[in-house]
Amino acid sequence: MVDFIRISQNELNSLFFKILIKHGVKEKEAEAVARIFTSNAADGVLSHSVNRFPLMIKYLDEKIIIPDNVPKKVSSYGVLEKWNAGRCFGVLSAECAMERAIEIASENGAGIVTMTNSNHWMRAGYYGWMAAEKGFIGICWTTTGKNLVPWGGTEIAIGNNPLVIAVPRKKGPIVFDSSMAQYSWGKIDEYISAGEKLPSIGGYDSNGNKTDDPSAIRETFKALPAGFWKGSGLSILLEAVACSLGNSPTVSEMPVSSIVETNMTQVFIALNNKMLNGIDNDNIADKIIDALHSSESEKPDSPIRYPGERIMQTRKDSKEKGIKVPIRSLENLKSML
Amino acid sequence: MVDFIRISQNELNSLFFKILIKHGVKEKEAEAVARIFTSNAADGVLSHSVNRFPLMIKYLDEKIIIPDNVPKKVSSYGVLEKWNAGRCFGVLSAECAMERAIEIASENGAGIVTMTNSNHWMRAGYYGWMAAEKGFIGICWTTTGKNLVPWGGTEIAIGNNPLVIAVPRKKGPIVFDSSMAQYSWGKIDEYISAGEKLPSIGGYDSNGNKTDDPSAIRETFKALPAGFWKGSGLSILLEAVACSLGNSPTVSEMPVSSIVETNMTQVFIALNNKMLNGIDNDNIADKIIDALHSSESEKPDSPIRYPGERIMQTRKDSKEKGIKVPIRSLENLKSML
Repeated sequence: MVDFIRISQNELNSLFFKILIKHGVKEKEAEAVARIFTSNAADGVLSHSVNRFPLMIKYLDEKIIIPDNVPKKVSSYGVLEKWNAGRCFGVLSAECAMERAIEIASENGAGIVTMTNSNHWMRAGYYGWMAAEKGFIGICWTTTGKNLVPWGGTEIAIGNNPLVIAVPRKKGPIVFDSSMAQYSWGKIDEYISAGEKLPSIGGYDSNGNKTDDPSAIRETFKALPAGFWKGSGLSILLEAVACSLGNSPTVSEMPVSSIVETNMTQVFIALNNKMLNGIDNDNIADKIIDALHSSESEKPDSPIRYPGERIMQTRKDSKEKGIKVPIRSLENLKSML
Repeated sequence: MVDFIRISQNELNSLFFKILIKHGVKEKEAEAVARIFTSNAADGVLSHSVNRFPLMIKYLDEKIIIPDNVPKKVSSYGVLEKWNAGRCFGVLSAECAMERAIEIASENGAGIVTMTNSNHWMRAGYYGWMAAEKGFIGICWTTTGKNLVPWGGTEIAIGNNPLVIAVPRKKGPIVFDSSMAQYSWGKIDEYISAGEKLPSIGGYDSNGNKTDDPSAIRETFKALPAGFWKGSGLSILLEAVACSLGNSPTVSEMPVSSIVETNMTQVFIALNNKMLNGIDNDNIADKIIDALHSSESEKPDSPIRYPGERIMQTRKDSKEKGIKVPIRSLENLKSML
């Protein structure tokens, strides 16, 4: 079992910042990276915050991340732009790309920025929330290293290519944020820690059989696509669109993602539905949420949640009580100072 | 078991055309509708061609389809346009929308057309293939009537909202074409006909338990989302984006889709990656396909298929040998003359 502790946003932010400075990152970049990692933790996405930060620092030390580089525009055609991240911090190139997509969409209805040569953008959802909170529909996804077995195959050959779709709503956006694997590695590790089986098959064991045993899947690293052939096909097309826009390395040219992940391609789309319709879409978003909340739930006392609902609650809790982090992760971070 | 017969493309096309004329459709519209239904049959998608045509004629007779209406542009902002289909033939408003998206993308990199007040567009993939065959990345999806149980719920409350993503390739595009249900109703009916269980759970029985019994799922009409919570969340966001762009009725405002489906919203996106990069993306698409084909398959004698691969083969067979259709469906069509 994992023991947790609460830490204030300022304190966690400052911890990230100091470690980055210690590893030679300049103040401006360190501030921005620390801000995004803190925000991810405040939203409860620890897998792409406190739990992943040490690996990012390792990548920094190994010069997989080149902190002084800045993303540069390579080409453009109308509302499409292609950028090269120059392997700077993945969170910074991604934030820059969604900002630029929003800027284009402000004037032209839609903005579509493809970022090539990127490092890991950490929490995919961050960039969707960012667009939605500025009043835009945000859609983004990334290629990854190889970490998924295509349907009909036996080897790790495709990426789990996380996809985010977010629509704005003043009281809190609706946000889908999901990789194409049925279970994230973070989720698989939770089941291992709890000594439980997965609720359904989630990967392959060492004999090549599909299994719900999380430890067996950790061992082979062979995860199953969500919805079997459906997640497999969607993953392949997310890769195909990203790499076609980026004219950039495909997942097959990358190592297995447990070894190293870099040189990824990400697509950022912002849509200005507000200007198209002359009104914001709170009415539409509320109708969708109300329909889910009033539809009968499996659990009589807790209504069906809309995508993103839990994050709003976690964010509120983090603000009021401090950010909940595993004691071990926090100690690990402190030892890096 | 279903018995099949082969019919020439011309003959099938002419059959559709004559039935449409008999039901009062003007020559120009009848020609276009017959052409699309024939193309869907030639690609092997019978569920949205010969098998569905009688229901469309019923909708026509009931004035759910208004054949003389034409889609009209309602508003635009930059590369975003919103149109109203006026409940004309769904296949015609959809084809018109993807054509317009391509036209906008030719000049501006991307074109995004939202079609509201639409009838059923039949085979989602048609519009993706159409974009890809013209050299554009094509992405489109539609809302549907209510036909899916949201994850965590017990009632039919969301749509299966088919999604298509297509990338161009001269030797044949890569095309993902899938609803958010784990199994289509056509697939469930195939398993019923064959007297077989589904390969995995696909819906709920009348006691509210998840089941792999296709007949029990037909009875409740309660289908499971692909990948459980993943397909459920993606369905909700596809609806949210479509209805936010269209400022149009949400799925919750529609009847269950087995009763009637109309007044749907569809989104059509064309992306001009060729102009962004100055080259077509055959190299990228080939690399993705080669990686899949050279990755180890579960079946030693048949390589992993890429999305869209089977359709290319079916299309070739249809051209050479005629279109394979169920004898019963063909007899049914002939009886409508």
